[in-house]
Amino acid sequence: MFSSLRPMPAEFHVFDTTLRDGSQQEGLSLSVSDKLAIAGLLDELGVGFIEGGWPGANPADTSFFAAMADGALTLKNAELVCFGFTRRVGMRAADDPLTAALRESHAPVACLVAKSHDRHVTQALRTTLRENLDMITDTVSHLRAEGQRVFVDCEHFFDGYAANPAYALEVVQTAAAAGAEVVVLCDTNGGTLPPWVSEIVTATAETGVPLGIHAHNDTGCAVANTLAAVDAGAMHVQGTVNGYGERTGNAELISVIANLELKYGWPVLPAGSLGEATRLAHEIAEVTNAPSSARQPYVGLSSFAHKAGLHASAIKVDPNLYQHIDPGLVGNDMRMLVSDMAGRANIQIKGEELGFDLSDREIAARITDRVKDAEATGYTYEAADASFELLLRRELDQLPTYFSVQSWRVFTQSAHNRLGVPETDTECTVRLTAKGQSQRVVGEGNGPVNALDHALRNALLPAYPGVGRFELIDYRVRILDQGHGSDATVRVLIQTTDGMRAWTTVGVGQNIVEASWEALSDAYLYGLIHAEEPGSDTGRLPSTEQVHA
Amino acid sequence: MFSSLRPMPAEFHVFDTTLRDGSQQEGLSLSVSDKLAIAGLLDELGVGFIEGGWPGANPADTSFFAAMADGALTLKNAELVCFGFTRRVGMRAADDPLTAALRESHAPVACLVAKSHDRHVTQALRTTLRENLDMITDTVSHLRAEGQRVFVDCEHFFDGYAANPAYALEVVQTAAAAGAEVVVLCDTNGGTLPPWVSEIVTATAETGVPLGIHAHNDTGCAVANTLAAVDAGAMHVQGTVNGYGERTGNAELISVIANLELKYGWPVLPAGSLGEATRLAHEIAEVTNAPSSARQPYVGLSSFAHKAGLHASAIKVDPNLYQHIDPGLVGNDMRMLVSDMAGRANIQIKGEELGFDLSDREIAARITDRVKDAEATGYTYEAADASFELLLRRELDQLPTYFSVQSWRVFTQSAHNRLGVPETDTECTVRLTAKGQSQRVVGEGNGPVNALDHALRNALLPAYPGVGRFELIDYRVRILDQGHGSDATVRVLIQTTDGMRAWTTVGVGQNIVEASWEALSDAYLYGLIHAEEPGSDTGRLPSTEQVHA
Repeated sequence: MFSSLRPMPAEFHVFDTTLRDGSQQEGLSLSVSDKLAIAGLLDELGVGFIEGGWPGANPADTSFFAAMADGALTLKNAELVCFGFTRRVGMRAADDPLTAALRESHAPVACLVAKSHDRHVTQALRTTLRENLDMITDTVSHLRAEGQRVFVDCEHFFDGYAANPAYALEVVQTAAAAGAEVVVLCDTNGGTLPPWVSEIVTATAETGVPLGIHAHNDTGCAVANTLAAVDAGAMHVQGTVNGYGERTGNAELISVIANLELKYGWPVLPAGSLGEATRLAHEIAEVTNAPSSARQPYVGLSSFAHKAGLHASAIKVDPNLYQHIDPGLVGNDMRMLVSDMAGRANIQIKGEELGFDLSDREIAARITDRVKDAEATGYTYEAADASFELLLRRELDQLPTYFSVQSWRVFTQSAHNRLGVPETDTECTVRLTAKGQSQRVVGEGNGPVNALDHALRNALLPAYPGVGRFELIDYRVRILDQGHGSDATVRVLIQTTDGMRAWTTVGVGQNIVEASWEALSDAYLYGLIHAEEPGSDTGRLPSTEQVHA
Repeated sequence: MFSSLRPMPAEFHVFDTTLRDGSQQEGLSLSVSDKLAIAGLLDELGVGFIEGGWPGANPADTSFFAAMADGALTLKNAELVCFGFTRRVGMRAADDPLTAALRESHAPVACLVAKSHDRHVTQALRTTLRENLDMITDTVSHLRAEGQRVFVDCEHFFDGYAANPAYALEVVQTAAAAGAEVVVLCDTNGGTLPPWVSEIVTATAETGVPLGIHAHNDTGCAVANTLAAVDAGAMHVQGTVNGYGERTGNAELISVIANLELKYGWPVLPAGSLGEATRLAHEIAEVTNAPSSARQPYVGLSSFAHKAGLHASAIKVDPNLYQHIDPGLVGNDMRMLVSDMAGRANIQIKGEELGFDLSDREIAARITDRVKDAEATGYTYEAADASFELLLRRELDQLPTYFSVQSWRVFTQSAHNRLGVPETDTECTVRLTAKGQSQRVVGEGNGPVNALDHALRNALLPAYPGVGRFELIDYRVRILDQGHGSDATVRVLIQTTDGMRAWTTVGVGQNIVEASWEALSDAYLYGLIHAEEPGSDTGRLPSTEQVHA
């Protein structure tokens, strides 16, 4: 129905630069094995091109290309791309060692960055506009002659076009004339808005050169800028998974892909690949150790989560009234959040998700009241699915007793050592009974919660060796009534994994140690319940939680 | 130069819905005092409208409007807006208690949500298309007659227009005819792309009704969709600070504002306000405890951070070659990632603000290094001015000794009482010397920090009776390296008042009790230093901290 949609071009490129431009993100640093792992995941996602890095300039990147050439990973879908600059000023491409590194990388495609903004040529590169064009011609034609496919990234193209459109267009035409297959228009500083992208790409497309787009998110418009360029004629999109990149990051590639596949109806990935997008985005985040946002479009943990009670009853009628796509298309799931804004319908849906029959209205109403009471005192079950399940089991008399705690205590002290430096020490004791055996165990730790965790684990190990696999992977504290000073109520959320699945528990109280203990002991209880499930050792992560694992 | 830019409309609304739609975000839960604090910060940002919540439906929201009516906060720039639905099916607006709650909220503006998608009327609301129009007319005209300004949010407008454009337009015209000042087109499910927003807003604008836009980020295009609507004629933009909101969140309001101010050249905020945007976005994130992304456009910690070595030398030539705006325009800073946020110039300015002479370059450089080292381990001095002053005094040998602590210890235990109910008890001991007198004092409390606070106060009272006026008014904990489980590093911020002024101190460590002790003892030390200043009893709260007080 929308007049703006054009048919999919006969040739269309999905070009990933997570390993190259994405790795410019603050705090992100990728080893060769990280790069190999991510390249495998990107290939599984089905992108057409994987830009692996800048061989010759960065030792890890040089090693990555060497490992790829040695067969460390065989790509099924993607072509490997090496990145580099046009040859240096006043040198022949054939003599420039950086150009040689591209040639010798064994990557079938080279993506060369070239200056296209006149001021950058004269002030940053400090050469003439003519020499810059010669550098492009020389480097592109040299690599083409050596058998590589060549794409050219025009750095600062949009700002360059605004300042000197004739020169910017001359760069595009020079690159194409020298043999560049695609000329990529880069919004390097990220300040361009979609209508301006549209106007400039439309004008540039009149050259007849096949165009690509490389957008950054500095105005919050990277995805829209990418689509605006596609609408104006681009046949090649660059981006990074999870939007990694310098400053505000690059165009988030899965959002671009999902928009093209599901909104435009363009099959830009191999059939079936998009359904793996959520898993792959999260697996890539595990490798980079830069968690993706829960709010990330399409693949975020919260992207199809509903909190509003007023929607819940209507969602039962028809979920598609409240979601823009079927979340399964990107491998994600609809989730109902249990919150104080939610009513009985939410709780029934959530209970059913967890495998409990809450069709009895009276039981559902009683549980809803329990949840409301708990939420009024500060508990939250939105994030703490495991605590919600324990609450359900308690109300339904389905809560097994794995251990019973008689007492615990924890002790922190700070005193000056012989050098006069204060030294802090924490110790705790836990007394409990498990499988009829009484245990009194002492624990040490960096702080009271860490010490209690160690003691509880050691007390349970004789009866349940499986708790040895449990690991606390996240611990969060929220002061609920800010402004009350140190006697405020605190909420603690603890996330635990057994290596297969991850679960979150909650504890609340005025005493931070007590609240932590509640979340901690519930984490062990939930883990023990599910450790005994048939097939739990080979079980998949539950769909609503797998993204944490 | 861009043909798409139109002149700024004579009337233009910046409408913030952080407190209403933003609070639908998973994991976000705002108390009345949180809402008051955020409303103050939004007013300082200079938005025109603050949607505070849904009185009558949500007890915390009802209390927030009551507190605002009682003068808990006086807005300087913004109008307060209450949110609600059109009256219920088959009832008169005058008789609907939810409509009464809007009328009685004392908010000068009501924003009513109305269905505009035919299937939502028949399947979710389960009434006729005619009755839905009557509900709009009845509710709008009732509230207008009672003296409120009324905006109408058309829920699911874009999907509704796609399914049944005639009905969607009839809803817009009905709302305007009944007296709605602005009709806001909502992309409730967030699935619409910018060219489609453009097409539909253009068509709807032909009605002549003043239009607004409310976008969600499900396709990664919320900011672009908002701008597309503005380009097509909208004169009212809705969004949330930090993009908070259900699923993928709402349009990030500061990105929208900065794009309009800096790219369009439209003065949509009071003069000078935009320069506070970075600070205000981060202070709002402190209140919600939902950290904003380092990659957030304009205000993110990384948004003007440069890592690429290849840029570094050119940035020295002209920083504007590598940034799309001057970061100072939004109160942010360019950062080279080899160095740290705090530059020497900053520290000199800040030191002078506090009354210290840091003109000696060597001293300033040494202090800058100390700040960098401390920030690298997790300290933050942006929020903790008092700890920064103590650091300065320590480096300048101007730190008086009011007390010296020999040791402290704290003990928490939980055991079953005679009724079999676990009972928790916390006790601590502090040993210190003040004015030559040795003190060993025991303290009790709800938790370890509360107990230490009581003991420290009691130990200092004999020597310094003034500490009796000190009161801890805020205590915050942030886990710095989430994902490390219970041995993560934590940062504690403590705010203290003596009834006249408030100050904030920071402590960092793996042991939460130790980090709290650091912030706590520094809070007493800072208070004692300033208790002896002439005129300290008449001091004002520092402006950046009063909003939390």
